[in-house]
This record gives sequence, C-alpha cells and structure tokens, in this order.
Amino acid sequence: MPIDAVLTRIDDQLPDALDRLMALLRIPSISTDPAYKADCQSAADWLVADLQSIGIDAEKRETPGHPMVVGHVEGDGPHLLFYGHYDVQPVDPLDLWKTEPFAPEIQDTDQGRVIRGRGASDDKGQLMTFVEACRAYRDVNGSLPCRITFFFEGEEESGSPSLVPFLKDNAKELSADIALVCDTSMVSPGVPSIASQLRGMLKDEFTLHGPKIDLHSGHYGGPGLNPLKEIARIIASFHDENGRVAVEGFYDGVEEVPDELLRQWENCGFDEETYLKSVGYTQPHGERGYSTLVQQWARPTLEINGLWGGYQGAGSKTVIPAEAHCKLTCRLVGDMDPDHVRKALRQHVEDRLPPDASVTWDNNLDGSPASVMNIDRPEFEQARQALSEEWNREAVFSGMGGSIPVTRFFKDILGLDSMLIGFAQDDDAIHSPNEKYNVESFHKGIRSWARVLDKLAKA
Amino acid sequence: MPIDAVLTRIDDQLPDALDRLMALLRIPSISTDPAYKADCQSAADWLVADLQSIGIDAEKRETPGHPMVVGHVEGDGPHLLFYGHYDVQPVDPLDLWKTEPFAPEIQDTDQGRVIRGRGASDDKGQLMTFVEACRAYRDVNGSLPCRITFFFEGEEESGSPSLVPFLKDNAKELSADIALVCDTSMVSPGVPSIASQLRGMLKDEFTLHGPKIDLHSGHYGGPGLNPLKEIARIIASFHDENGRVAVEGFYDGVEEVPDELLRQWENCGFDEETYLKSVGYTQPHGERGYSTLVQQWARPTLEINGLWGGYQGAGSKTVIPAEAHCKLTCRLVGDMDPDHVRKALRQHVEDRLPPDASVTWDNNLDGSPASVMNIDRPEFEQARQALSEEWNREAVFSGMGGSIPVTRFFKDILGLDSMLIGFAQDDDAIHSPNEKYNVESFHKGIRSWARVLDKLAKA
Repeated sequence: MPIDAVLTRIDDQLPDALDRLMALLRIPSISTDPAYKADCQSAADWLVADLQSIGIDAEKRETPGHPMVVGHVEGDGPHLLFYGHYDVQPVDPLDLWKTEPFAPEIQDTDQGRVIRGRGASDDKGQLMTFVEACRAYRDVNGSLPCRITFFFEGEEESGSPSLVPFLKDNAKELSADIALVCDTSMVSPGVPSIASQLRGMLKDEFTLHGPKIDLHSGHYGGPGLNPLKEIARIIASFHDENGRVAVEGFYDGVEEVPDELLRQWENCGFDEETYLKSVGYTQPHGERGYSTLVQQWARPTLEINGLWGGYQGAGSKTVIPAEAHCKLTCRLVGDMDPDHVRKALRQHVEDRLPPDASVTWDNNLDGSPASVMNIDRPEFEQARQALSEEWNREAVFSGMGGSIPVTRFFKDILGLDSMLIGFAQDDDAIHSPNEKYNVESFHKGIRSWARVLDKLAKA
Repeated sequence: MPIDAVLTRIDDQLPDALDRLMALLRIPSISTDPAYKADCQSAADWLVADLQSIGIDAEKRETPGHPMVVGHVEGDGPHLLFYGHYDVQPVDPLDLWKTEPFAPEIQDTDQGRVIRGRGASDDKGQLMTFVEACRAYRDVNGSLPCRITFFFEGEEESGSPSLVPFLKDNAKELSADIALVCDTSMVSPGVPSIASQLRGMLKDEFTLHGPKIDLHSGHYGGPGLNPLKEIARIIASFHDENGRVAVEGFYDGVEEVPDELLRQWENCGFDEETYLKSVGYTQPHGERGYSTLVQQWARPTLEINGLWGGYQGAGSKTVIPAEAHCKLTCRLVGDMDPDHVRKALRQHVEDRLPPDASVTWDNNLDGSPASVMNIDRPEFEQARQALSEEWNREAVFSGMGGSIPVTRFFKDILGLDSMLIGFAQDDDAIHSPNEKYNVESFHKGIRSWARVLDKLAKA
C-alpha cells in the first residue's frame, strides 16, 4: 500500500519539515502594517521556491496589495484547489511574548511539544501540512496523486482587499472540482474535524449625537441629555433577561439544530468546562437554554466590540460629551439575511432615540450570511474516513463560531464548494501573544492530508 | 459722593485696565501642564508687581506646585479676603480656536464687544475686575476703603493640590471677616447674581472585569460574558424612566426648594429656551417635573463622564474585551453625604454584577458636600444693593450647578463665609476653545466691586 510508504516518509522527514516551517515563520509577513511589505514579498517568494522544489509550476502574482502565490501540477482524477494564507497578525502587545515572535522555537510544554511563534498555527503551520504531504507523496511515488492548484494569499489578516478582484480576474485558472482549506481547528485535542457550518457576520457602528458641543456637567448636569447614558440604555435594550437578542426580526431565518446533529455534537469530545474555565468563566453566559457549543456554532449573536465616549484619561473630568460611539458585530446562522438584520438593528436603535438625540451609522462595514457546507458530496465522506483512520477516532462534522470569508468567495465567484480541514487547537493563541502549534498537529496534519489526498484521488 | 468719582475714574481708565488685562492674558499659565511651569511663575510675578503698583504689600509665596500670591493692605472697617486664580485651562483642541489663545484680542461680535483669549473669563478677567476697582478707589481716595487681603492661587484648574496645606500653614495671616470670590457667572446677561448655593460633587470610577483576556467573538461570541454589554446594562439601571436616579438611598438628605426661593428663581431672568437651544436641546431632559434651573441648581445628578472598552480604531474588530470602564460624577445638594452616596452607588453596581464578573473601583477620587451660603449675614444684603444699583436691576441670590471647592476650605480651615459675585456669562466658553469675556462684564464688573467695597466699608 503506497500510503503506508508515504506516511513512513513523513515520519522520517519530520525534522526537515519542521526546519522548513521555521524558515517560513522567521519571515515577519504582517500584512496589515505597511512596514512589513517587503517581508510579505519574501514570504511569497519563499513559498514559490518551496512549491517549485516539489515540481509545482508556481509563481508569485502581484496585486495592488500583497502578492498571491499560484501553483499548478497536472494529474489524473479530481482537480483540487488548496487554499492557505502566508500573512500573519501583528504581534502587539509585544511585552506579553515570552519568546521573540519571529524567532520560532520548538518547546516542550504542559500542552505538549509545540512550535512557538507568530503564524505557527495561523496559518503558516497549517498551510505547510498540505505542502509537506504533497512533498512526501511525490518523494515516494514520483508525482502527486491528482491535479492540484495551490493558491496562497497574503492579505487574509487584513481584510483580503485583493482577493475578490483576483478571483474574478483569474476565475478560469483557479477553477477546480472542490476547494480544500486548512485554516480551522479541531473540536478538541485528538478529535479530527471537518467544519461544515460557519456563522456569518454583520458589522455595524453608530454614533449617538446629543448636545452640539461637550458640556460642563456643573452647568448642564441634570437638564442635559447625556449621550453616554443614552447609548448605555440602548445597548442594554439589545438583549432580554434571558440573553436573547431583543431586536424585532433578528431571528428571522434561524432554525433549531436538528436532533441528530445535536447528538453528534454532544459526543464530539468538546470539553465545555475547560473551554470556559480557560478564560475565567465558571458557566456559559449568553442565551439561556443553549449549550456553549450550540451557542458558538449555531446561534446568532449581537456583540458589542467597542464602546466609547467622554473622558478616558487619569482622574476626573466633569464633561457631558457631545457624542458616544458603539461598534458591534452580529454572528449570523442559517438563512439570516445580513441586510435584513442590519435594517432591524438600525430601526431598533432609531426607535429608542430620545428627543434631541440623533444617530449616524458607518456605512463602510460589510456583512455576509452563514455558510453551510455541502456535506452530501462524496469527498466529505472520503475525507472523514481518511481523518478517522489517521486519528483513530471518528471524525466529526463540526460547526464554527467564526467565518472563513474565502469559502463564500470560492462559491460565489468560482462555483466551488469548500472542505475545511484544520488541525489547530483552541489554545493555540492565534492573534495573541505566544501563538503556538502543536508538533502533533503539524505531524499528524501532514499525515492526514496524505491520507485525504490518497482517498480523494482513488475515489 | 466719592463713589461717583471712583466710577468716573473707572470709565476713564477702562482702556488702561484692558491693556493690563491683555498683558496678563498673554502669559500662558496653564497649571496642569509642567511645560508651563515658568509661565505660572511669570503670572504670579506679574500680579505681585501689579498689586504693588497700587500700594499693596504683595509677595509671591512658593508651594510644592505653583506659587500663591498674597497681598495685604491695612484699613479700618471690615477685613475682606479676596480670592481669585491666575492659572488657566489647557487650550486643546487648538484647531478649533479662531485666534491664538494667548494672543488676546478685543473683538466686536454678535455677543457684544468681547475680550477673546484663554483665561479672559476664567479667571483672569474676573480677578482683575476686583483689582481694577481697588486701583480706581485708591486713585480717587488715596487709599482703599477697608482692610483687604488678596489671595490668588495658580492651581485651581489642576485640582488645587497646594491649597489646603497653604491655608493650614497660613491660617492666621489669611484670616478675615468674610471672603469675596469672583469666579462665577450671572444668571443671565445683565442680571447681577450672588451665588448662594453650590452643588457638591462625588467622583468615582469603576472597571468591570469579565474574561481573563480579550476574546475572539467567533469563539466566545454567545457563551462569553461581554463586559461592554454588562456595563451598559448597569449604567442603564442608574436612572428610572422619569430620569430619577434609581440608586437606593441616593436622595437621602435632599429637600425640595422652598416655595419662596422657587418664585425668586422663576423671576430671575433665566431664559431656559435660549440656554437649552444654545447647545442643541429643544427641551429639558433629566428629572421629569423639575425645571432646567431647579435641576441645575438644586437637584442631585448622576452623570456618566467617560465610558470605554474594546476596539475604538477604524473598521471592525471581533473582540470581546476583558474589561469595560466607566467614569462618573454625582452632583450633590442639601445634606447629601458624599461617603453615603459613594457607598450606595457602589452597592448598586455590585448588586447587579452577573456571575463571572467583578468590579474594581478607583479609590483616589474625592467628594465634597454641597455649600449653602450664609445669606443672613448683612454683607449679602449690602452687596445685593450695590449690585442692583450698578446694573439697574434687582440682584438675585442664585444657585450654581457646579462647585467652587475653595469656599468649603475657607469655611473649614479659616472659619470664613464666602460671598460669590461674578460677571461671567454662560456663553463665555470657559474651558473651551474661543473663550471670551464681555467688555461689559469687565467694565461693569469693576464698577460693581467699587460699589460693593464702598457699601461694605461704610456699613
């Protein structure tokens, strides 16, 4: 069985694979900060060279922002498009890092053996699991098992401004049978997971305007309308006492999770207590009557992400400010329509404005509906079997609380379904100081992709 | 009648008096900013020299902060202590100024002829009304009408850290029969006012703590406790639907305004509509059932002065922050006890904390009860008559929404009652860009003090 030889090759070559990942992690490809523009180019160059080293016809493709990397290899059987991103989040607050973010280390820790450094998990380590699987497969078999297009972007952490134009301009070149994405987590350590439903998101921001100018609370304290008080009252009205969103029409398009899926989730190994305890909670909050997992994967939310107004410095200032500000995001599920939710939300706020107050909205913030993957496609069952064999544990179709916008663009622009398989863990501290990726995630991730490729190619 | 000669002298010398004020206004004596330390010294030096020029035994007295100016002149009759402050507020936002803040100008405007510049009203212009009255009185009569101690501080706009120790250390030297303070406004243009009751103040600040770290709303949005939502809910609970403070025990010590005083206030010329309209209000807000003036002068408040947490930058960030912050002040009236109010307020917040949340308080913020002046003293009636004669309009005993902490220290440390007479107008933009003082306030303010001095000395 050739797959066993590939897996052995992966085991033998792990030190070299880690070395390659470390080299990529040393490149500070922070996409949101213009100071790292040249480093984003270097990361793209590194990937082009690495793909070329395993016989892939790869090149860097410039965009108005950071470049894309596109590679092709011919082959029989299904045509796969593999997506990952080589850019990383900023590293601040730097003083909370225990190592240099771009001087990656292998460390033995309580969480196991880990690769420590910015991008180790999100997404360089994950991206390389697929590349290393391809390398080993080719080393053993002389070629890859099927036709594959590699597609890496460098702007995922900064809103992907070039992605949609690039997909549109290169739709033919990037067409395939199905997209594979490695940018997600396992439900819990050791439980292989295919993310099959992702929440959508609506972003909005408003400013509540009261008096024409900042006022002195000695003069206007009492008769004056205070925007901070009013914005608090409005925000407090967003939820009822059971944690349910109290905006009329908000839940249109939301359905309860089917019993069968609910049973799967209940048995997927998710450790609610640990998950909550790790951030200081003794119990789930939010919508009463729903478990943590169901809330996270299958219930919509309205979260305040930013709130400010008045004086924030040291000491006291007797000001009634002219304005108060609120940033919020809604996570969307099922058939919730972002435009409908936005309208309902804005109406809710406007209905609650007191006299002499007005509201303005930021109209530059977008929204996208939830994504539900097409798990009836045979590739999902093939991948599920491959993962179950590697991890010796039934793989699960999981939900995801966040969104992976690229899957929507693949669907809308390329007509491609996506299959989301990732090996990150919830404690990887992505976007935070001391990001890590377990060596086991990397090693078994490579092995997993080898198995998945094999299954998909042979189907 | 010598007072007529003094008033004529004041009229004749107005251009010179304005020149002197302009010289003082050119000194950027911003007390809160260490960069202006030398300028605070210069302002004190200027005042010492100016007092000396009218025969007053004045000197600069160093403190750990900015210096005090103390001057004495002997005389018969009552012993008056006159207080003012030579320091000013910072000038930011500088781009909203239409002139240089420290290059004062006389301008003809819709509001009349005004002196424009930082400190023109608060408090250099007001302070100089008294000094110029003394100068004219001496020019005409060869000496001042009674014994006067001059006392100017340079830290009023930065919390007066040196004031209490200085008063304690120099209590004997600063003792007098009554204190005169010129740092207040007229109820409305042309209506001379003696502020006879001032609200007290309680400052507090709290931080509401939720998760141990900032969370990603894709992961914890739903089951996660959001401190921004919770702080909004708590702030919303501070008031009931009638604008009344809903903190248990808050109103202990509050009494309704006596009918007679209420009638005086109703006829004091206060133009509610203009007062509200000038800042963009079409109606009074706050506590239902109370007029703007009564709310401002005689009702307690709980105002949010600062509120913040989460992301405030451009665009969106899907964060559930670990903390949310709130700064607040309460205005106190009657016999309200700051310590009691603080305790009630903190209890109110703590009673409303959800599970897994905690609160911490800033324990460095002070409080002081309301001040009610002793208007039965004969000096109040003498001053009221003098003011009524100058302005040709019955002077009123007004309330004040803000506090003048020095009056409390005079009472507690020196045993001195204070009489607060000022000529500022509500539209003077004190603490704001484009501060001004009407030339009429300055001119008739000087004339007013000459008349008041004359009445008090002759009584």
